[in-house]
Amino acid sequence: MSGTLHVIGTGPGNPDQMTPETLKAVEASTAFFGYFPYIDRLNLKPHQRKIASDNREELSRAKAALNLAASGETVCVVSGGDPGVFAMAAAVCEAIDAGPDAWKEIDLVVTPGVTAMLAVAARIGAPLGHDFCAISLSDNLKPWDVITRRLKLMAEAGMVIALYNPISKARPWQLGAAFDLLREVLPATVPVIFGRAAGRPDEAMLVMPLGEADANRADMATCVIIGSAETRVIARPGKPDLVYSPRFYSGEKT
Amino acid sequence: MSGTLHVIGTGPGNPDQMTPETLKAVEASTAFFGYFPYIDRLNLKPHQRKIASDNREELSRAKAALNLAASGETVCVVSGGDPGVFAMAAAVCEAIDAGPDAWKEIDLVVTPGVTAMLAVAARIGAPLGHDFCAISLSDNLKPWDVITRRLKLMAEAGMVIALYNPISKARPWQLGAAFDLLREVLPATVPVIFGRAAGRPDEAMLVMPLGEADANRADMATCVIIGSAETRVIARPGKPDLVYSPRFYSGEKT
Repeated sequence: MSGTLHVIGTGPGNPDQMTPETLKAVEASTAFFGYFPYIDRLNLKPHQRKIASDNREELSRAKAALNLAASGETVCVVSGGDPGVFAMAAAVCEAIDAGPDAWKEIDLVVTPGVTAMLAVAARIGAPLGHDFCAISLSDNLKPWDVITRRLKLMAEAGMVIALYNPISKARPWQLGAAFDLLREVLPATVPVIFGRAAGRPDEAMLVMPLGEADANRADMATCVIIGSAETRVIARPGKPDLVYSPRFYSGEKT
Repeated sequence: MSGTLHVIGTGPGNPDQMTPETLKAVEASTAFFGYFPYIDRLNLKPHQRKIASDNREELSRAKAALNLAASGETVCVVSGGDPGVFAMAAAVCEAIDAGPDAWKEIDLVVTPGVTAMLAVAARIGAPLGHDFCAISLSDNLKPWDVITRRLKLMAEAGMVIALYNPISKARPWQLGAAFDLLREVLPATVPVIFGRAAGRPDEAMLVMPLGEADANRADMATCVIIGSAETRVIARPGKPDLVYSPRFYSGEKT
């Protein structure tokens, strides 16, 4: 009598960036669990129930969704972006790992989506065109010294760095501290992209050199991409600058 | 008299994983440049011209597409996956950077897509649920010692590692050497995912511990994801194992 649990991502927020596969998972489901702004991106029908929760309640949300799926219902857990990148797929797996055996019998179907760094990168050129990493700057789930160690090693390795969860009311100073740390390793000319709300009506893209990067330009809807020493900026008359990381390694000093 | 250049990605190959935004870019374009298996994924109409090329000719393909767009045509450059991840968006930017001024006046529109590691991750659970990186294992465009240095630093930093271009006829030994190197840094129990042709009819997912990871299990259609010391495997009766990286940091030794 076990049901199905879909774990989907809405993409960055532009309906045109949500895949048909994701739409089919939405159509097949009768109950939706998620942070309410993400659920609100879906055009649900009257018979489809919304069980919205706050964005700090991932694990309890996952458990509630698994409970309902275990009873035989087709349930959908909704993330923004891609559900596998700093999002609900990991929370659902954590719950299954620690939960009752019945949860291991649920048909779990995770559907990939367009994650924020890809949407931001597309808007600005190709900053992720060579080796890169994605790091959550939130120190709610890992210690700050682990984050700073990772940032330093990434910069030393010459990786382009995409920062998720760069700033929030409860975490106001971490992004500035990250920029300070990276300025000790990377050239001041390295471009930093503040990609806000990519693909949505309130989209705003801003590029500034690391030497001048100002954490106040980011908010919770921003994905920050920090180039490597290889990353280049192309000025275009009458158009925004392009930022890209060449496919080949030129040996610029990192 | 400058035209438009769309740079798109088909996603991993399942038409249901291509976004509506990408389909609109395809509909608007009259000439298509790309590696032929990727162009063949599009249902082009008779008036839409295909200019297919081999997969080693990215820069000349980008230049040809830019030339045609500069003449006023609406042109589409086609990648697999996401066009910004080890794909054509960077080659197009490189060509613009080094090319004639007229190419900087072209309307460049890059459309994000589902990149291979996200499709593989979705199929297997949530291995990219925490900090991760993407590295191309091809030493055609960067020296092998840069690759080995990066791999070592990524493992030491506790990052999950997605390897693109893991193996080819011309590069038969690099993936095995990468496993050997990582075995010196990471526990032998770390799960390695061989994600082949995710979302396509010939899809095959395989998980083995790093200690036993066999490079011969990968081919050109495989994206290899190597867990961190935090990554866990969930056995499920009658279903494939789930692999996930928890959102929280437990402090497992890397």
